[in-house]
Amino acid sequence: MEVITKISEMQTMVFSIKDRKESIGFVPTMGALHEGHVSLMRSARDENDELVVSIYLNPTQFDNKEDFDNYPGQLDKDIEIVERENADVVFAPCTDEMYPEGFCTYVTQDKLTDTMCGRLRPGHFNGVTTIVTKLFNIVKPDKAYFGQKDYQQSVVVEKLVADLNMEIDVKVLPTVRDEDGLALSSRNKRLNPEERRSALCIYSSLLKAKSMFASNVKDAKEIIEEMTSIIKKAKHTRTDYISIVNAHTLEDVSLINEKAVAAVAVWIGNTRLIDNIILE
Amino acid sequence: MEVITKISEMQTMVFSIKDRKESIGFVPTMGALHEGHVSLMRSARDENDELVVSIYLNPTQFDNKEDFDNYPGQLDKDIEIVERENADVVFAPCTDEMYPEGFCTYVTQDKLTDTMCGRLRPGHFNGVTTIVTKLFNIVKPDKAYFGQKDYQQSVVVEKLVADLNMEIDVKVLPTVRDEDGLALSSRNKRLNPEERRSALCIYSSLLKAKSMFASNVKDAKEIIEEMTSIIKKAKHTRTDYISIVNAHTLEDVSLINEKAVAAVAVWIGNTRLIDNIILE
Repeated sequence: MEVITKISEMQTMVFSIKDRKESIGFVPTMGALHEGHVSLMRSARDENDELVVSIYLNPTQFDNKEDFDNYPGQLDKDIEIVERENADVVFAPCTDEMYPEGFCTYVTQDKLTDTMCGRLRPGHFNGVTTIVTKLFNIVKPDKAYFGQKDYQQSVVVEKLVADLNMEIDVKVLPTVRDEDGLALSSRNKRLNPEERRSALCIYSSLLKAKSMFASNVKDAKEIIEEMTSIIKKAKHTRTDYISIVNAHTLEDVSLINEKAVAAVAVWIGNTRLIDNIILE
Repeated sequence: MEVITKISEMQTMVFSIKDRKESIGFVPTMGALHEGHVSLMRSARDENDELVVSIYLNPTQFDNKEDFDNYPGQLDKDIEIVERENADVVFAPCTDEMYPEGFCTYVTQDKLTDTMCGRLRPGHFNGVTTIVTKLFNIVKPDKAYFGQKDYQQSVVVEKLVADLNMEIDVKVLPTVRDEDGLALSSRNKRLNPEERRSALCIYSSLLKAKSMFASNVKDAKEIIEEMTSIIKKAKHTRTDYISIVNAHTLEDVSLINEKAVAAVAVWIGNTRLIDNIILE
């Protein structure tokens, strides 16, 4: 496995892969890898000739300096994990490579980014769309893999690819959970044992939404009230949003009569966690 | 020569060109082709295996509806011109193809676009960077050709390509002029004979800048004063800007001690014309 830190070296590598007419599967990550990332790598490994994993903690998608500073970093351990999954290349550029002095071009999106996490984390999704565009242009994947846990991000990236006519197949894979249901997230490491227990309210609220919907409750407000009550009962919680949105447009729905997503963002102590479940 | 109007057909064509490992030269245009475009096509024809010319009047780069509505359209004649230059493909999509309903992703740039035409035509360069990104992603050129007449645009596109890590060689070719010096522009057609004569003040002012600079005048203000006086003397003129800027950053310079550009935007009657000359 090669570890590449320079954009020009990555481009040379991609050129030779393309020259051999091999396909590239790409898993972009911010490091602090867990089993969620591993599941993406395994699918990418299965479905492509070459597997490229990027590890880059992108500063422009953090609206909160404290969150950026506290984001777990563990490059050596991450590289071991990627190697174990038989990746061909780790691309781990530094910020001087990705955002050299004078950088002034951004990819922005409206509509899909005006709601949910986009509304509460100003600039976040512009950071995502910009870095994803750059990484896609450098790595030139045939298929790129994202986790459903970041549901809004997956819709934003699918729209980015469609609107800017990138010929990339965006694969969104199911959220990987701990045994007790907590969605894996690099930020889970920040939870103390009591917070970790409290965090279970998130998945409980989603399961409640799913079961109500399965029992034919279509009124979003009614479901959201139940979810809210579950989350409020848990200790150390503060809600950013509890929403039921159209799965494609991300617009709030009042009556669920198309594919929808129940999505929540909740602070557990000082850690903000997100999760979602599809209602269809 | 093939005339393609569908993005998917263009992508199929590009795929087969790439499969043959041939190089693509690309001349993006808004139609109303003149000898300036022809000079770009000839260079692109010489330097690449395949020549693709796009003809698309991009609505998102017009800040002024009247300008958009009055922009000359002559698709059949344009296609003849392109065919005469031995292009392989004309890509002429319609707006439903390029901006389907729900389109919401834009490429934006600051700094370089805050000055000159960017300051006076709000949104113009975001329209340019967005459509150029889309066309580059569809056509996947090795080399793309732009005219120096739109100097700010050429710098913006070079920066776009660098910042978003597109591997495209941006070629900027000299402005083509009528015998009397007027820079060719699709908008020249709108000038009546008297305006056409007045418009010569633009190139006269640029030649004055060049000769003053050659005579060792380095003070931008002094040169701009002379240029202003030449343009003011001509009939039917109204100045948008007369600037001397750093050739790379496009920032106004007071003392010319690096490569600079004298650039003007002048209304002749109801037609806005731009032109520039390099000072080095």
